[in-house]
This record gives sequence, structure tokens and C-alpha cells, in this order.
Amino acid sequence: MTLEEYLPFWKQLTSAQQNLLGQAASMRTAKAGEPIHRGSEDCVGLLIVVKGRLRAYTVSDEGRELTLYRLLERDLCLFSASCMFQSIQFDVMVEAEVETRMIHIPASIYRQVMQQSAAAANYTNELLASHFSDVMWLMDQVLFKRMDSRLAAFLLEESGLEQSENLKITHETIARHLGSAREVVTRMLKYFQEEGLVTLSRGTVSIRDEKGLRDVARESLR
Amino acid sequence: MTLEEYLPFWKQLTSAQQNLLGQAASMRTAKAGEPIHRGSEDCVGLLIVVKGRLRAYTVSDEGRELTLYRLLERDLCLFSASCMFQSIQFDVMVEAEVETRMIHIPASIYRQVMQQSAAAANYTNELLASHFSDVMWLMDQVLFKRMDSRLAAFLLEESGLEQSENLKITHETIARHLGSAREVVTRMLKYFQEEGLVTLSRGTVSIRDEKGLRDVARESLR
Repeated sequence: MTLEEYLPFWKQLTSAQQNLLGQAASMRTAKAGEPIHRGSEDCVGLLIVVKGRLRAYTVSDEGRELTLYRLLERDLCLFSASCMFQSIQFDVMVEAEVETRMIHIPASIYRQVMQQSAAAANYTNELLASHFSDVMWLMDQVLFKRMDSRLAAFLLEESGLEQSENLKITHETIARHLGSAREVVTRMLKYFQEEGLVTLSRGTVSIRDEKGLRDVARESLR
Repeated sequence: MTLEEYLPFWKQLTSAQQNLLGQAASMRTAKAGEPIHRGSEDCVGLLIVVKGRLRAYTVSDEGRELTLYRLLERDLCLFSASCMFQSIQFDVMVEAEVETRMIHIPASIYRQVMQQSAAAANYTNELLASHFSDVMWLMDQVLFKRMDSRLAAFLLEESGLEQSENLKITHETIARHLGSAREVVTRMLKYFQEEGLVTLSRGTVSIRDEKGLRDVARESLR
């Protein structure tokens, strides 16, 4: 484990700060589906994905989920350490989507370095701004884009992540990603099937016409 | 103008940094309705409200607006300086809602201080986190809360800001705040009128039953 590779501000730290981080950091592994962080009730610390994939999402009072973003290799998860910021007053949940190996840095240690080092603080600023941008993009989607476009974009993204045209995913799970109801997703997927864009079978959505899906998704593709 | 009052990290700056900010800062006044910042196309700089009120909002491709938050006295507007963050990739518009006096600090100067001072960078982190929290709250509202509740909460908030039960505001303007269509707002306001919650007349919405509105608004009140 070499923190230097993952923290761009490493060289600007004092050796005392480097030692502090180095001694506090540890490796962790989570299984597919394992919850990593449950909103404000815990403050796991900073996580850096070494291999695998994390999903950050919110849950409404009624239990509806919405995926905020995915964290891929080399991504740094700030919300599992949201206690570092007094001003973060919302709950984000984080779970492993596949088996994930990650570096863990306790929130108190990272916060201590950030308080001392302008380089660390400014890097964290950029991370926060980047997550903020993702959420603003998502809000624009949810508010102003059509569900068919969002669903098509999700299927294409998922196909890219899984490197497969046959997605093992339930309608329920898709609905959770999109903050929608299962019935809405099922209706839309059936419509996509009638249009020849996908084929549906038990627990699987297979992409049949990628170009067609891309047309439907156009306004929702990043 | 005393920057010290408005920037909590002032005492932690070097006198060189204090001089830099002090010499670069200037007072500005904007009229009610005046646009201050137009997304990524300009980068006005940091603004601190001394007296008055700013509104930060987004606009969809189709021209629909949604109010993200209001900036009141002593609030610091970060999005009029969004060029300070490479990772901010969304457009926020800012306008004065009433005549507003504000302190202006050029983005390049604030950025320079933030690069040097961990205290300034960490304060900016908290600001960003706070704006982020507001937007997450809003997304929860838009996704999961009912329109009647959001409209009732908006009328109560507006009544508090204007210190009046008679709101001079058009249905079109309310729709712009809520990211909705005018027709939807008009229909809902008529329903509120039938229920005895408000009285409608040309260009005015008068609150008649504050407690009743508060009941409808319950799940949307912060």
C-alpha cells in the first residue's frame, strides 16, 4: 500500500504528516453488497478504492433509494468521513457493489492533516466540489430529464462497468439506482423490449440495440 | 468595510494575506432583479452579502428554473467564484432579489489566499459542504416530497423573508423557485384558496391560515 500513489498532495506534506497518515492507514476488504457506511450515525473514515466499486446513495423517509455516484478504482470516498465537516447535514449511505479492496484512513487523522496542510485542504475542496458537481448533474436529470432517457443511460453505464451486454440486475435494483418505483421501471423496460432495444428474461436485461439506446439516452449521457 | 467581521479565519492569516484581501476587496451594489453571475461563462468573484438578499438558481436546457438557496446578510456566495474550483462543472446563476450591498473579492485573490492558508481552505470547505447540504435537502424535496407540501413551505419562508402575510409574487415566479410549471402552481394555489389557507388576487398571495399551511408544509420545513 503506497499512499503516495493515491493522495496527490503527498509530496507537499511534512514527514511528520506523512508518518501520521502512513501509520493510521490500513487495508480493508468488503464483500459484494456489504454496507460500508450508514449516514451520520457512523463515521468510518476516508476510503480510497484500490480494486472494486462502491456506491454512494441516499434513502428517503419512505425508504426509496437514489444512487448519487459510484466510486471506482483510485476514487476517494469523502462521505464515509462526513463527520469531518460540521456543515454536512445529510445522510449518505455507502455500500460495496462488488468485492472491494480499499485503503482506510480514520476521519480524525485525515482531519488533523487537513487542518494543518493547505495542500490537503485544497485537494479535499476539489473532491467535495467534484461530488457536488455529480449531484447537481443528477438533480438536473431527476428534475428535467425524461425517465426513458435516464433508464437508457443507466443501462449503458451499467453495461460499461460490467463489461457485458447481459446485465444481471432486477427491476427493483434499477429503480433503487434511479430513485423510481419498480412498476415504472418495469413498464419502461417492456416498452424498450417492444422497441427492440433490450430483451428481458428472469433477472437479466440484455442490450440488443446499443445505438438505439444511445439515441434515447442522448440527453442523459455525461 | 471590515473584512475581519465577515471572514472567520481572518486572524489566522498573515498580515501580507490580510493586506492582499483588504486591498482587493471592494463594495458593490445591485438593484432588485439584477443578474450578478451567469454560470461558468463568468467568474465574478467571491461575494459577501452586507445588506439585502441574493438568489442562487439553476436553469434547465428548456429554461426551467429552480432556486437552490438564498444568501442573506453575512452569507458568502461561493458560486459566483466557481472558477476557483476545477471540479465544479455545473452552472449556477446568481441574482439580487432585492437591492443588495455586498463585498466583492476577486476569485484569483481569494484562491491565492486559499492556496496558502489551511484556515482559509478549511473554512471554504465548510462553506462548500454547507451549500452541498442545502442542495441535498432540496433534491430530497424534489424527488420525494409532495408539491403541496413544498409550495406551502415556500409561502411560509417567503412570508418570513418579506415580514408580511401579503406576498407580491406571481405564479410564474413561484414556479421558477420550485422548478415547476406555472399551471401546476396555479392549480395548487386555487386548491389552497378553496381550503381557506390563502386568498389570491392579482399579483398577490395572502396567507389566511398560517397554522393550516404549516400542517401541509410539515414534511418540507427545515
